[in-house]
Amino acid sequence: MGGDFSPRNEVEGALEAIGMARVKVILVGMQEEIERELERLGAREENRIEVVGASQVINMHDEPVAALRQKRDSSIVKGFDLVRDGSASAFVSAGNTGAVMSGATLLLGRIPGISRPTIGSQFPRPEGGFTLVFDVGATVDSKAIHLREYALMGSIYAEQILGVERPTVGVLSVGEERSKGNELVFETARLLEQSGLNFIGNVEGRDVLKATADVIVCDGFVGNVMLKLAESMIPVLRGRLKQYAAKGLWHKVKAGIAATVLRESLKDFDYQEYGGVPLLGVRGVTIIGHGRSTPKAIRNMILKADEMVRKQVVRRITEALNAEPVAA
Amino acid sequence: MGGDFSPRNEVEGALEAIGMARVKVILVGMQEEIERELERLGAREENRIEVVGASQVINMHDEPVAALRQKRDSSIVKGFDLVRDGSASAFVSAGNTGAVMSGATLLLGRIPGISRPTIGSQFPRPEGGFTLVFDVGATVDSKAIHLREYALMGSIYAEQILGVERPTVGVLSVGEERSKGNELVFETARLLEQSGLNFIGNVEGRDVLKATADVIVCDGFVGNVMLKLAESMIPVLRGRLKQYAAKGLWHKVKAGIAATVLRESLKDFDYQEYGGVPLLGVRGVTIIGHGRSTPKAIRNMILKADEMVRKQVVRRITEALNAEPVAA
Repeated sequence: MGGDFSPRNEVEGALEAIGMARVKVILVGMQEEIERELERLGAREENRIEVVGASQVINMHDEPVAALRQKRDSSIVKGFDLVRDGSASAFVSAGNTGAVMSGATLLLGRIPGISRPTIGSQFPRPEGGFTLVFDVGATVDSKAIHLREYALMGSIYAEQILGVERPTVGVLSVGEERSKGNELVFETARLLEQSGLNFIGNVEGRDVLKATADVIVCDGFVGNVMLKLAESMIPVLRGRLKQYAAKGLWHKVKAGIAATVLRESLKDFDYQEYGGVPLLGVRGVTIIGHGRSTPKAIRNMILKADEMVRKQVVRRITEALNAEPVAA
Repeated sequence: MGGDFSPRNEVEGALEAIGMARVKVILVGMQEEIERELERLGAREENRIEVVGASQVINMHDEPVAALRQKRDSSIVKGFDLVRDGSASAFVSAGNTGAVMSGATLLLGRIPGISRPTIGSQFPRPEGGFTLVFDVGATVDSKAIHLREYALMGSIYAEQILGVERPTVGVLSVGEERSKGNELVFETARLLEQSGLNFIGNVEGRDVLKATADVIVCDGFVGNVMLKLAESMIPVLRGRLKQYAAKGLWHKVKAGIAATVLRESLKDFDYQEYGGVPLLGVRGVTIIGHGRSTPKAIRNMILKADEMVRKQVVRRITEALNAEPVAA
């Protein structure tokens, strides 16, 4: 309910998702509003859609932890309750990111051995495929042991969801050389070298949109800044083409062609294509989307959640941590 | 001498510069090599070019401080000597960034009141003009008092060189709200609010390519990662267009048009246009360029240095620090 276009886009996205995969979707939120949307779309009788009423909404400006405590009948709290009691396998939301993150941690709980859950984001590569970056905003002022956890969880995610065998892991720094970086980088490199993961050393900002490493770990402050900078690129390009087009008819024609070429060439830069980002390290699949998620983004978040459930990402992380001689 | 194409590009760039501005250029380095280049370009008799011999080269892999100590007859050390003794007004180099930075600090000295010199970079905006980001790599693990110094120096640079009146200053964070950020952000905001600068609060990664703030301050680790990520965009776009063109003749034609449109629309993303980045906080104008600087980039670095000298950026920073009731 807390997204910018809730519950309309959520309902539309859910209907798209059940048309594409063998999933069942429980829509949690204002019962009447949701049913009105289902009515509008002629899907009142759809038996793979269930509605669970929640009378409160945690909105974008609510302080996450306080809101979770005060709004026990919100869609976020009730959604996580469904996952915790086993009625649902995953939770997907376009609502308040902080509230979803805190809700997952407080209501589902952390996987034993994980001190900081992490949000990952995928950055497109020239040859296709993605580079995963952890963390992009769950924790600022992360410590080296957190980055080590991100590396472990990120590697499992890359293996299971992106199908990469023995994924390479890099630590984000200001130079490739071992001597370049800050204290966090040096300490993380020391931990990763002893981790059994496929650690390849330092990578730089210019490696994020390349295939240098499958998983890049960094402090959540840095990752968040990178994510938002990268996401601003497409709007910047669009703005530039508009300015170019305004110069005259011939310019307009050329800008139109350029726009078509770019739309196709940069498809994988469109966040709607992958919808949301996974929150790893909690006891249940959780996917967090943009407030302004489109139906397509919601659909893809549900499909991604379904895949994470089928590939048992949470169980694999739990087992990997149990198997570790020295759990972080 | 330490650039990837030294001294050829330096000599060509210097000749371009004297053709465009009333500057005199002293080329410091291997005398014979430089004179051979001048000969090749028919400029042996050019009286606004002087050659000062330096028999050693600090290369890209040298450890900066050790190299400065051991290679007293390198172009970097001799170049700064010329600035220090008043024979030159500015130093421009495409050599080892760390060595130029350390050389400026050790050989020219810091401006009183500055504890950390800073490198700024300009990020293009949709409406034209630039957003300045300090620091992009001089100091990792910067403290709040350093960010406050960056804000002061950046504001003076924006005023003098970009012609912005009372430039706005933002601190880079993970959300606009005052409550979002890390300890460095909170402490910096406190200092900037009392600074008399035009502080506007937190800005985010998505504001870097926009006109939200004229000057954005951040830790050098974060700034460096952003700079390298942003610089990788044009090569990424170029790669995508190439892939598109490979799909067939008609695609090739369209990709060609798109490339033309983008080349013109994204001119200000081309680092050659502004050449290098200023190092502020030392007693003398210093500009640091890419190792792979083209003649055009070198020329623009010289022109930028000339402008900084004429606009008295160093003197203005010195005076502003003297005038401060509480120098950081």
